[in-house]
Amino acid sequence: MLNAVDDALVTALRAALPPAAFKAPEPRYFEEPRGRYSGQAGVIVAPSNVDEVATVLRLAHGARCPVVPYGGGTGLVGGQVAQDGVAPIVISLERMTALRGLYPDENAIVVEAGMVLADVQAAAERAGRLFPLSLASEGSARVGGVLATNAGGVNVLRYGNARDLCLGLEVVLADGTVWNGLSRLRKDNAGYDLRNLMIGSEGTLGVITAAALKLAPVPAEQGTAVFEVASPEAALALLALARAQVGEGVSAFELIHAQSFAFLAETLPDIRLPFDTPPAWCVLIDLGLPRGLSAPVAFETLYEAAEELVGDAVIAQSEQQRQGLWSVREHIPEANRRIGSVSSHDISLPLSAIPEFIATAGPQLDQIGAFRINCFGHVGDGNLHYNVFPMPGRRRADHENERPAIKAAVHDLVHALGGSVAAEHGVGRLKVEDLERYSDPALLAMMRAVKTALDPVGILNPGAMLR
Amino acid sequence: MLNAVDDALVTALRAALPPAAFKAPEPRYFEEPRGRYSGQAGVIVAPSNVDEVATVLRLAHGARCPVVPYGGGTGLVGGQVAQDGVAPIVISLERMTALRGLYPDENAIVVEAGMVLADVQAAAERAGRLFPLSLASEGSARVGGVLATNAGGVNVLRYGNARDLCLGLEVVLADGTVWNGLSRLRKDNAGYDLRNLMIGSEGTLGVITAAALKLAPVPAEQGTAVFEVASPEAALALLALARAQVGEGVSAFELIHAQSFAFLAETLPDIRLPFDTPPAWCVLIDLGLPRGLSAPVAFETLYEAAEELVGDAVIAQSEQQRQGLWSVREHIPEANRRIGSVSSHDISLPLSAIPEFIATAGPQLDQIGAFRINCFGHVGDGNLHYNVFPMPGRRRADHENERPAIKAAVHDLVHALGGSVAAEHGVGRLKVEDLERYSDPALLAMMRAVKTALDPVGILNPGAMLR
Repeated sequence: MLNAVDDALVTALRAALPPAAFKAPEPRYFEEPRGRYSGQAGVIVAPSNVDEVATVLRLAHGARCPVVPYGGGTGLVGGQVAQDGVAPIVISLERMTALRGLYPDENAIVVEAGMVLADVQAAAERAGRLFPLSLASEGSARVGGVLATNAGGVNVLRYGNARDLCLGLEVVLADGTVWNGLSRLRKDNAGYDLRNLMIGSEGTLGVITAAALKLAPVPAEQGTAVFEVASPEAALALLALARAQVGEGVSAFELIHAQSFAFLAETLPDIRLPFDTPPAWCVLIDLGLPRGLSAPVAFETLYEAAEELVGDAVIAQSEQQRQGLWSVREHIPEANRRIGSVSSHDISLPLSAIPEFIATAGPQLDQIGAFRINCFGHVGDGNLHYNVFPMPGRRRADHENERPAIKAAVHDLVHALGGSVAAEHGVGRLKVEDLERYSDPALLAMMRAVKTALDPVGILNPGAMLR
Repeated sequence: MLNAVDDALVTALRAALPPAAFKAPEPRYFEEPRGRYSGQAGVIVAPSNVDEVATVLRLAHGARCPVVPYGGGTGLVGGQVAQDGVAPIVISLERMTALRGLYPDENAIVVEAGMVLADVQAAAERAGRLFPLSLASEGSARVGGVLATNAGGVNVLRYGNARDLCLGLEVVLADGTVWNGLSRLRKDNAGYDLRNLMIGSEGTLGVITAAALKLAPVPAEQGTAVFEVASPEAALALLALARAQVGEGVSAFELIHAQSFAFLAETLPDIRLPFDTPPAWCVLIDLGLPRGLSAPVAFETLYEAAEELVGDAVIAQSEQQRQGLWSVREHIPEANRRIGSVSSHDISLPLSAIPEFIATAGPQLDQIGAFRINCFGHVGDGNLHYNVFPMPGRRRADHENERPAIKAAVHDLVHALGGSVAAEHGVGRLKVEDLERYSDPALLAMMRAVKTALDPVGILNPGAMLR
């Protein structure tokens, strides 16, 4: 059994940490972007260094008190807010924002867990390098949370997800032990891969305090285009063609449905759309090419070779036009929020199963009711955001009763096609039941065994990922 | 305590498995390439499918009998041969060689663990794709062993090591439970990352029976060159320049010391060397470029831009010349074997520490005695093979007493510079003490906890990685 934060624990924390390490209970610590969960805390601490984090964990461990790690608060599955159970310590990494080292010649950077993702990108850029992880919340999301959730985003196709961009970690374990695994090595087989075990464990196995991250060279030539495609199948054929021509040069490949444009026009009319009449399907393609190649020429070559797959196309002729096309893609989540979804699904599929999924899911939902579906996202990675909205004139609240059936229909189909119902947002508290329902029992048993091995008292983010 | 294979267990195995699953005790099961270990077995089984592997593990687990997984037998650290302890079951994956699925449009292939690496490469090639993992033993190494050891090789710089090329695994756990994690998904955050935990655990946490692997597009244009460089520092500056020009187009970047050429001339005189007078240092660079670029032109551009870093250069003008340059690189390990090393070191370093390591290690070894040093390898990944040989006229046996001092000097220096003493060959039985000596204690404690959690009886490859 776990104990709530009590006066004795607070007194011990106040004796061990400076006053600046204690935070007032501002609402942000208890909210998450979708408003499904509201958290609680017995005390909120924001240590300024790894030793202070270790102190907090050691005291919490001794008191058998839960600890909920808190980064930028941008997670979409409730991993950062504990609303059930006894009042925990919320440990925010917001004061650990130091750049510990920058190694342009090694393509590496070492940062503390509280650094905001956009600040990592900016530090890399100042050194003439690229930190390629990019996602909608990059202005608030912090490195620790990004790694704890193995965040994805738009450049996974080329550069991988957060896991693929991490070389080493510094982690405070459940009992306050510090693991110094802050290696910058590209090859190291000295021991089990506990770095990747920590990444994506959502604060249930340790508190990440710093990370060594990979940088990439900035592509000499970058460009963006939007191609109309006849179908999701045509989108995938176009991707294969693009990769045959420019290899890893395809940095992003995003599917957009006409519904996205309609929502943008309805809620954000200032966003300039690339087509007067939005096509049923289109893809936004981003290229990053080596010296000697031209992005517009590469797009034209691709367009000609893909004649039977594509319709209209808009190829950015300037950096401003490029930003304009990206702005369309990046505002889709905000437009969705303004419409208000009945049910949102962050799913991934084997690439070849995507057309069947899209063709099957819509008719299945028609049997439940009348909805507008916005299907968009990182199709190059097989990762779709398949979000279900009310018809015009109706509200999400009108469909509360249908949500479970919608979710079950989508998730069952994804599972039947070999996909995942937790693609890039993680499990958090929202998908614990889904994990139990769809996971291989051997995986669940191993997860429980590992959790017990590394956090035997169970103080780390209880209720997230595992019950 | 573990029990040796006894008559009751053999009887139970023979009742459960067909006769073809039993193998005669051929020498290959007890040897490893460097001849440092000689194994033993109570019985050797070669199951033909995952259910038979599960049967073997279930019976072994019930009998508390050790199980040593055996792939191609090419490991260099004794991970595949148990010479100490009670006589184990050796479980060879050699009969599980099926191609379970090939998905060119997804850039994925699903194979059984016994498939030989070169056969995976060939299957990918037939589908117009590349399986980029490439190493000297690819004609014998099997997929299961390659993943269990997280093997590296010459293309890690561009494509990553075995871990980075794996999408999913099928694994039989210690008690015979089958974990079906054979996913082809590019993004999946549904649960802890146990795939990467299994990869590199050298058969101590489970027996890999099948894997879903990533394929890559074949670069439209490929080329190879050897550039003389003034120093290891110049080699690293050249790498940064090359990546600034062609980005991910640098597929391999291998350092070669004059000693390599001298050993090749001495032991393999048929290998044609690229320079009449071997330079002190050179790098072999492999480029794989998108359509529209020429490899020879890219090399010439790089050569001109690198004027102050480079001396002579040989740029392959044909596929035959390209193979010739690669043949030089690939025969270095064989030349080393013919000379006979006193001590070999598979080390990795942060890139910026490489010049200091090379400048410091030689003089330190001079204090121990007179040796020839062949320092070569995957410098682009920070991974060097730093091998120490007798002077002409002396034999390795003359230096038995000095080996511990040599190894300690090299490994201590690597550790002091933030490097790893087990870069791409793994830990096996050879480096268990090194792991204990150089690892962060928190890492070792976590490894032991995880091992106990997933293999509480301790039957899986006992003696490898952990004591």
